[in-house]
Amino acid sequence: MYQLIDGKKTSAEIRQELSEAVKQMKSKGIRVPHLAAILVGNDGASETYVSNKVKACEEIGFDSTLLRFDASITESQLLEEVEKMNNNSEIDGYIVQLPLPSHISEERIIEAVSPDKDVDGYHPVNLGRLVAGLPGFISATPMGVIELLKRYNIKTSGARCVVVGRSVNVGRPLSILLSQKGMDATVTVVHSRTRDLKSVLLEADIIIAALGSPAFIKGDMVKEGAVVIDIGTTRVADPSKKSGFRLCGDVDFETVAHKCSYISPVPGGVGPMTIASLMLNTLQACRR
Amino acid sequence: MYQLIDGKKTSAEIRQELSEAVKQMKSKGIRVPHLAAILVGNDGASETYVSNKVKACEEIGFDSTLLRFDASITESQLLEEVEKMNNNSEIDGYIVQLPLPSHISEERIIEAVSPDKDVDGYHPVNLGRLVAGLPGFISATPMGVIELLKRYNIKTSGARCVVVGRSVNVGRPLSILLSQKGMDATVTVVHSRTRDLKSVLLEADIIIAALGSPAFIKGDMVKEGAVVIDIGTTRVADPSKKSGFRLCGDVDFETVAHKCSYISPVPGGVGPMTIASLMLNTLQACRR
Repeated sequence: MYQLIDGKKTSAEIRQELSEAVKQMKSKGIRVPHLAAILVGNDGASETYVSNKVKACEEIGFDSTLLRFDASITESQLLEEVEKMNNNSEIDGYIVQLPLPSHISEERIIEAVSPDKDVDGYHPVNLGRLVAGLPGFISATPMGVIELLKRYNIKTSGARCVVVGRSVNVGRPLSILLSQKGMDATVTVVHSRTRDLKSVLLEADIIIAALGSPAFIKGDMVKEGAVVIDIGTTRVADPSKKSGFRLCGDVDFETVAHKCSYISPVPGGVGPMTIASLMLNTLQACRR
Repeated sequence: MYQLIDGKKTSAEIRQELSEAVKQMKSKGIRVPHLAAILVGNDGASETYVSNKVKACEEIGFDSTLLRFDASITESQLLEEVEKMNNNSEIDGYIVQLPLPSHISEERIIEAVSPDKDVDGYHPVNLGRLVAGLPGFISATPMGVIELLKRYNIKTSGARCVVVGRSVNVGRPLSILLSQKGMDATVTVVHSRTRDLKSVLLEADIIIAALGSPAFIKGDMVKEGAVVIDIGTTRVADPSKKSGFRLCGDVDFETVAHKCSYISPVPGGVGPMTIASLMLNTLQACRR
């Protein structure tokens, strides 16, 4: 019988811990963490993401600031705003909500954010610090996965781990983190060019699925007793839902779950951990 | 019958190509690349490394500058020198020869080098750019290995590749480079905590050995027809040599070579490629 990895519950626990930390800071007269968000344009999904982050701050007791700019803002104007954030000593960390309008280079904006305030962990310096094992900010999804593994006491040392997907913000950093000293897994990264994916997956004690292909991983690709973490989250049309869609992971839960020792569902697994991770990073930024 | 990967020959070819590039630059009246090196103290090995780099510049036709400082230089004085280098528009790239005296933080010095002049590829920004697949400097040893694979037309796409060792400057960046788009290998990183190393190695079409343990990899750990790249270079006492030692790789050449399709020896494999890589990076820095 598998155990469900409940990201919603773990995320709530982390927020509770953060609330306690804030209370202690207040009682000692220490300034509480302050997260800011830059939102450009009015993309519906981005609005939702940002307002969830602001709401999480309010619930925990962090200060938050939301800066909105019209989609017509120029790159150099946005760079000026980023610079203001870098120099504003009252802001501990901030995010620039992606995607940005196509006339603005996301790369250039990301590299302009001060690495010490880059709580999204997107700046190359923070990626580099991750590689070097130096303190820095780890982006929300990889960090959420590591937190889940730790809080569920899943042993990674010496385990064979297969990371499916090599994206810069998810698969790649996770593969590095899992193979570093302390975590010590034997990590293989697989991707679209991998030959005989099934036999590679069957070697895995731990599978991390981050490819974004609904129900791609089936029961016959998973070893008995494996731990499966499902990161992929794709909207799939579903007329039976009021919204017209449902969220579907990379793992075919029906055929995979019964083979697992632990499995994280979609929704309710890694997803809810991302905001908790952002809040942990903001606290870390404040404590520096 | 295996084919030997001759790093000495390939390195000489690259230097020849660079000499040609310099001649063309001169004929067009373009300023030639200028590499500088900062050497602190008078460690014998460091002296040799730096003088080899300066000599390589001279042979190719690059300009070079060697700055020497006494081992008593303070960290803040050295940071000032680094800043001068960053601001000196006549220097395209420079290296700070490691190790530094123990009273100076290597981390702090490395982070002070401008990423755009960091031809050693040690700055976290360059590690991060490597992760992100953005243009940047790749450190000499990983770059030398990639060059060898390319110049010997070794197919990496879809190949199972095992990188032995997870060091920040060698194993880790190589594992990332080999698994990225374009190279497309299926890469596993193994290390001291890996269980059943032998069976993991036997899966490999390509083995990259970078652990620094003399003759660790034996013939029974290698699949028939594998490509083996030996990076480890350890001094082993040898009274029959005038120097009293010989260089020994991580691979037990005697038992491994006959199973390989390609194998790089030690010495004469990856070693000679490192200076060639540094020179390629210096040319790249100059062209930016």
